[in-house]
Amino acid sequence: MTLWGGVFSEPTDDDLRKLNDSFSFDRRMYAQDIAGSVAYARAMTRAGVLTDSESAQIVAGLGKVKAEFDAGTFTVGANDEDVHTAVERRLVELIGEPGLKLHTGRSRNDQVATDFRLWVKDAVTVTQTWVKGLQAALVERAEQHAADLMPGFTHMQPAQPVTVGHWLMSYFWQFQRDIDRLDDTRRHADVLPLGSGALAGTPFPLDRAALAAELGFARHSENSLDAVADRDFAADFLYALAMTGVHLSRLGEEIVLFSNPAFGFVTLADRYSTGSSLMPQKRNADPMELARGQAGRQIGHLTGLLTTLKGLPTGYNKDLQEDKEAVFGSFDTLGRLMPVAAAVIRTMTLHTDKMKSALVPEMLATDLADYLVKKGMPFRQAHHVAGRAVRLSRDLGIPFDQLTLDHLQEMSGLFEADVSDVFSYETSVSARQADGGTAPDAVRRQIQQAKNLL
Amino acid sequence: MTLWGGVFSEPTDDDLRKLNDSFSFDRRMYAQDIAGSVAYARAMTRAGVLTDSESAQIVAGLGKVKAEFDAGTFTVGANDEDVHTAVERRLVELIGEPGLKLHTGRSRNDQVATDFRLWVKDAVTVTQTWVKGLQAALVERAEQHAADLMPGFTHMQPAQPVTVGHWLMSYFWQFQRDIDRLDDTRRHADVLPLGSGALAGTPFPLDRAALAAELGFARHSENSLDAVADRDFAADFLYALAMTGVHLSRLGEEIVLFSNPAFGFVTLADRYSTGSSLMPQKRNADPMELARGQAGRQIGHLTGLLTTLKGLPTGYNKDLQEDKEAVFGSFDTLGRLMPVAAAVIRTMTLHTDKMKSALVPEMLATDLADYLVKKGMPFRQAHHVAGRAVRLSRDLGIPFDQLTLDHLQEMSGLFEADVSDVFSYETSVSARQADGGTAPDAVRRQIQQAKNLL
Amino acid sequence: MTLWGGVFSEPTDDDLRKLNDSFSFDRRMYAQDIAGSVAYARAMTRAGVLTDSESAQIVAGLGKVKAEFDAGTFTVGANDEDVHTAVERRLVELIGEPGLKLHTGRSRNDQVATDFRLWVKDAVTVTQTWVKGLQAALVERAEQHAADLMPGFTHMQPAQPVTVGHWLMSYFWQFQRDIDRLDDTRRHADVLPLGSGALAGTPFPLDRAALAAELGFARHSENSLDAVADRDFAADFLYALAMTGVHLSRLGEEIVLFSNPAFGFVTLADRYSTGSSLMPQKRNADPMELARGQAGRQIGHLTGLLTTLKGLPTGYNKDLQEDKEAVFGSFDTLGRLMPVAAAVIRTMTLHTDKMKSALVPEMLATDLADYLVKKGMPFRQAHHVAGRAVRLSRDLGIPFDQLTLDHLQEMSGLFEADVSDVFSYETSVSARQADGGTAPDAVRRQIQQAKNLL
Amino acid sequence: MTLWGGVFSEPTDDDLRKLNDSFSFDRRMYAQDIAGSVAYARAMTRAGVLTDSESAQIVAGLGKVKAEFDAGTFTVGANDEDVHTAVERRLVELIGEPGLKLHTGRSRNDQVATDFRLWVKDAVTVTQTWVKGLQAALVERAEQHAADLMPGFTHMQPAQPVTVGHWLMSYFWQFQRDIDRLDDTRRHADVLPLGSGALAGTPFPLDRAALAAELGFARHSENSLDAVADRDFAADFLYALAMTGVHLSRLGEEIVLFSNPAFGFVTLADRYSTGSSLMPQKRNADPMELARGQAGRQIGHLTGLLTTLKGLPTGYNKDLQEDKEAVFGSFDTLGRLMPVAAAVIRTMTLHTDKMKSALVPEMLATDLADYLVKKGMPFRQAHHVAGRAVRLSRDLGIPFDQLTLDHLQEMSGLFEADVSDVFSYETSVSARQADGGTAPDAVRRQIQQAKNLL
Repeated sequence: MTLWGGVFSEPTDDDLRKLNDSFSFDRRMYAQDIAGSVAYARAMTRAGVLTDSESAQIVAGLGKVKAEFDAGTFTVGANDEDVHTAVERRLVELIGEPGLKLHTGRSRNDQVATDFRLWVKDAVTVTQTWVKGLQAALVERAEQHAADLMPGFTHMQPAQPVTVGHWLMSYFWQFQRDIDRLDDTRRHADVLPLGSGALAGTPFPLDRAALAAELGFARHSENSLDAVADRDFAADFLYALAMTGVHLSRLGEEIVLFSNPAFGFVTLADRYSTGSSLMPQKRNADPMELARGQAGRQIGHLTGLLTTLKGLPTGYNKDLQEDKEAVFGSFDTLGRLMPVAAAVIRTMTLHTDKMKSALVPEMLATDLADYLVKKGMPFRQAHHVAGRAVRLSRDLGIPFDQLTLDHLQEMSGLFEADVSDVFSYETSVSARQADGGTAPDAVRRQIQQAKNLL
Repeated sequence: MTLWGGVFSEPTDDDLRKLNDSFSFDRRMYAQDIAGSVAYARAMTRAGVLTDSESAQIVAGLGKVKAEFDAGTFTVGANDEDVHTAVERRLVELIGEPGLKLHTGRSRNDQVATDFRLWVKDAVTVTQTWVKGLQAALVERAEQHAADLMPGFTHMQPAQPVTVGHWLMSYFWQFQRDIDRLDDTRRHADVLPLGSGALAGTPFPLDRAALAAELGFARHSENSLDAVADRDFAADFLYALAMTGVHLSRLGEEIVLFSNPAFGFVTLADRYSTGSSLMPQKRNADPMELARGQAGRQIGHLTGLLTTLKGLPTGYNKDLQEDKEAVFGSFDTLGRLMPVAAAVIRTMTLHTDKMKSALVPEMLATDLADYLVKKGMPFRQAHHVAGRAVRLSRDLGIPFDQLTLDHLQEMSGLFEADVSDVFSYETSVSARQADGGTAPDAVRRQIQQAKNLL
Repeated sequence: MTLWGGVFSEPTDDDLRKLNDSFSFDRRMYAQDIAGSVAYARAMTRAGVLTDSESAQIVAGLGKVKAEFDAGTFTVGANDEDVHTAVERRLVELIGEPGLKLHTGRSRNDQVATDFRLWVKDAVTVTQTWVKGLQAALVERAEQHAADLMPGFTHMQPAQPVTVGHWLMSYFWQFQRDIDRLDDTRRHADVLPLGSGALAGTPFPLDRAALAAELGFARHSENSLDAVADRDFAADFLYALAMTGVHLSRLGEEIVLFSNPAFGFVTLADRYSTGSSLMPQKRNADPMELARGQAGRQIGHLTGLLTTLKGLPTGYNKDLQEDKEAVFGSFDTLGRLMPVAAAVIRTMTLHTDKMKSALVPEMLATDLADYLVKKGMPFRQAHHVAGRAVRLSRDLGIPFDQLTLDHLQEMSGLFEADVSDVFSYETSVSARQADGGTAPDAVRRQIQQAKNLL
Repeated sequence: MTLWGGVFSEPTDDDLRKLNDSFSFDRRMYAQDIAGSVAYARAMTRAGVLTDSESAQIVAGLGKVKAEFDAGTFTVGANDEDVHTAVERRLVELIGEPGLKLHTGRSRNDQVATDFRLWVKDAVTVTQTWVKGLQAALVERAEQHAADLMPGFTHMQPAQPVTVGHWLMSYFWQFQRDIDRLDDTRRHADVLPLGSGALAGTPFPLDRAALAAELGFARHSENSLDAVADRDFAADFLYALAMTGVHLSRLGEEIVLFSNPAFGFVTLADRYSTGSSLMPQKRNADPMELARGQAGRQIGHLTGLLTTLKGLPTGYNKDLQEDKEAVFGSFDTLGRLMPVAAAVIRTMTLHTDKMKSALVPEMLATDLADYLVKKGMPFRQAHHVAGRAVRLSRDLGIPFDQLTLDHLQEMSGLFEADVSDVFSYETSVSARQADGGTAPDAVRRQIQQAKNLL
């Protein structure tokens, strides 16, 4: 028995069943489906549609169905096309007639939207836990290396010295924006559709505000036609997951690169490295490559759902069933990645000696220009003079910090003996102590803020 | 003169210039660039780096540059590779040496991020104005037709009668979520990057909190490496624009369909319709087709930027320059669409007679089931009985509402003479008066809420 | 035992295993993996690396492994991280030492690329079978209705009368382009990577041309570094599947619309229709909605893989593992959709009476203009006159074909009594007999061509 | 005057004009539009619809219109909504009445499809020229460095020594696949839609095969409804451009990385490098970063068009106008990138000393395993022994190639004095001389093949 067969003269085709049925993937929402039904039964009782006794039987029966799912003993029926059908079918088997009353005034359209919003709200919180796990690992390592030096890059070219802690914290803040975006997502999902019926609303005197409160929703939807066709919250979640995935891909890329011996900044722990079936010496950073590559999948799921939504008329359309596999896919992908990424960060060896030895004096050219600024030269000229000094050092094959005062004074009379103070990576870094700067003190302030947020 | 030539021995290749230069599109941020520089000059004065006199000259000079842009008299220089270079070059022409000091401690990396955030914050507000314009049109028409009847569809098949106002308001709420999402976007953009330098922060004693306040930012960035490489706000805006575009595409689809004479629900005003070069009678809803089709472009821009960001190492990379054309493209697309869409809604003729005559009695089958529920039959059985009644009416070729009581009683003894009350579209609609329902009263409550939000 | 543990001091982390392992999805390539290994063993024998006896044992052992997979009796080992490991592990269990020699000179990098190309080549053929099944259904129905009339739409507005067969055949040709594109895909996939080793080629005297021939490849790859990192063929297949999905989405949209009673052109067979849990009368075209909506998923998979490939350095990177789930996902999606879509087309009722009665005389306005052209009026003027005639008929409330000769002659003296011949849908349609036109004869020529292609 | 105003009582709204008009971007197809009209005039003359004199006047007039466009003197009219309208309007101004006859039997629907196919066919050829330019640069550099050594990476970790020429050629073959894919695209575009009218075909006795031949099309379309709505060729081109963009992004990534001094393999010529407004020493590989980043844009354009096409009913819909800006955007993006990328490759300095010195003995571990294989040990065991040797060398802090024979013999008795022959990068590379391998000879064979293809 499907929930809807009365008007049809033929059974549904088997291939259509395979195409249409969603139980294989929507069964993971069973707890939300049952919670929604429990609350609905109570609300319909308050509305005078169900008796207290019917309601009590339904609630008890649903408890048993949930227990079967929890225990893995739930038996799938031949016509269980989706989780809603499966739960109702089993409920009726368990308690008989009152079970046949549960669906009064309700449609799978408002039911599935309710279930999925409940699921997404939970999943957002789980996602935030994963993100925080990675953030905590970053903070932990940043604290250990707040004052260690490494080259900072722009355009992947040596730019200025930075602190290792600063570099690690640059990822913390990316993920903090994901936390914020996930908060937005939860707020957008926090609206109850139940009581919208199939499209037109319910003819029963349902107190939707109370129903929303019972299910933990902040508010209820304002328009039934919209409520059953609204998948914005699913797209919002896919977007938040995709952005988290993009941030993770950037971290992945950088860890992969810095693991290359040309840099040699990082070595992953053995248990987070992999080898090769052919090359015995290989030690690959597979998890960080997947962290990089799987952002594609997450962007693809987002694109896919937006494309599905494009051009749909309002009201429920079957196309909307595409929401779930995309969301589950992106969520599960991140769920496999994040704990491993956190563990990689926590356990990787940071070779601070190699990081420091990758610094080159030219990275202080900006400091040399700033020196001239302090002596009164306009920056734009100072930049040019420092550029010429770099070129001279390259032409002469002399390290930039070993240009003589004579060399420098040829380019500007403002250079004096104290110019030698410029050529210290530590000084360069320590000077950048304004908020957000790379100075160890500024980094420690960042870390403190970060800890407050975690 | 570029801003950076000192170290190079050859001029930049012309083809590279064409590829690299951004002035053709980033010039539209000139006001933001100049506002940022004015505030920066003041902050550097407070920091003791510029004198009051230099600052005053800079501020006055920038005012002149802005006036030239405003008036359309700004002359592009051969080396104006981007708006920042153009403004600085012109400033120096106008005021000489103090202009050469403006860039002290600043990089185009933090400068462009600041400019673009200022621009996006403004653009978000403009977008909300467009959205509200369309919402106002929807509310206006919904109010006129709060009680008129039309068929409601699910799966594009006749489902239940709804009110025309309810249908129109279903779009209002979609766009209201866009308003909310745009609020989120503005909040995410509302962070000052200036003072981050190229990547490592500023060595000058800049009060970034004061600088943020002066530029109207809610707060300043926490990590300089992240601040110059963060384009989350651009992606957030593209996402918000894409979702607005998706909602518009759904409205577009439905207006296009309902303009087909098979429905005949809607006629667009002549001045918003177009014809055919070949077929003299044609009257096409071009603007709503574009509203539907251009969602593709907006989703494409979002996908494009996310793909560009995927796998980028932290710190500024030139790839980030891809942010602007995508954002400008999506914003301009919506800016062309929204006012036309609002005008279409405001001026279209709604043929309420055709809408009403498209109702068919079978759309009351749920009400018939609800009748049986009220007589005590469990809903699941009532649904089945009503389904059989539909089938009988089809088999007999008798309209569903003209089945006799005998016919009905064959299927259930619970049917009584009062069943005839079920067969009224008005009754069906009016019964759905719980929050969010299609009853005229519930729709008027929606409209009141909507007006409060506008 | 993994294939690569010698250099590591710690076992791989369990979470990393869950993230990294691909056996759960790549096991479906077992037949291809084994075929590749059989051919490789023979080639290495010809190269003098394996003895005939070793080769024979390997080939026999692999036959047993395949039989276990075929029979569903293959037992997964704890370290079977992918299908290659699983097959090799089991082979060694079955035949001992010779099995340990199979991987000589081979890497999983060239092995997986070979397996997947073999799989894709097969899958392309399967996909073509599905497409042809749908095409055959379209041709069958088109033949039945080659001369029946229906309104043709542009911009979803009544344009000109067309034949039903012509409309159905318009989809045939879309799918025929998919057939062509799939041929391209197969050709692109038809290149053997085996013998590329991990990246640098093989040091053994392998005759790669013979190996390619044995495995049925048209040719072998030209550069080992490229060969192991090339996933163009996977992207090509995803693109071909996405385009097929887009075509199917267009057919889906139109069948859904034409099933709405406002059109009433089409009724799906009961066994391909679905109902509603709430509304007893509902009869939804679910499969065609899914055909429309799942194009999103297919576009998403394509976007996802392209994004993953973007910016990858050459040589194998783990990111490439993302190819398989995307391809399997798009292929399986189409595999569920296509047979149902073909059955829907084959079994749907076409209501030719309703189609014909949806024609309106204004759809002959172009024919009226053509009439004037034949009388000597330039088309651009004739178009304008016909437009004015449409407007007059609307203003007067007179059907377009019932304007009197007086009415018409007011607009142009070229109108004569024979103008009445214009007002025949059959005449209009029959006139369009040039190649590709909607005349029944031209449609029958199309159908004949189509049959030749099937 | 628009081409279609007769039936309307109000002028078109200005905002709608801004939204709808395409002349600003479709004017670049003027040559194709005019070529199409010239051929159409001739075909209509052969069909007896135009006289020889009219045809001659039209052809001459169109020649003048083209000359105006070519010379940049074409003046835009107020109602020139698209290139077709503009050309026809100007033609009528120039030659009067015969110009009013040109559009007989033609629609902008079949006209624009024809124009755009002609444009795409040309653009495909131009794209191939760009691709070949880059390929030629790769071959040139590969030839210079066919025998130089560098580390080959997989997972961005040192894998095996390869030759520089081999690495460069790995990109050649990627681009060769683009050439093939562009050939496919041209073939798909090579179909004439003209003669399809608006949707139903032409009622005039047009010889479409002859018309196709005159315009250089391989064949004509088979179904008019499909022909006007088919944008597969545009999607195919976007896909081919996106794939080329993806390949370019991979090259971009690698050049950017190898320009970092940690590698130091590559230095871009000064005129293809850029600097920093703040940091005087900077030398950035901007063009290759854009090559990497702009793949996002190209993927976005593809996604965008596919999304627009999804779910469109057959027949022309205005949404299809979205095809052009996407295609022009992707084409122009690649057109700016490719010549610069070719110049970068041609002019960059390859530091073969640094490349060679980045080799480490562990990269010969596979060769050590192969040594044991040749001594009779099964590869899987040999791999394990070699892995243990790597681990021993790491534990002892002894370079892998300086493990003593005693060390090695502890791990396997098969090691003999000749093992020292293994530790030569040249030997390792030269051994890989099978087709596609990295041996200098094999690379030279590749280069010869490549030259034959160019």
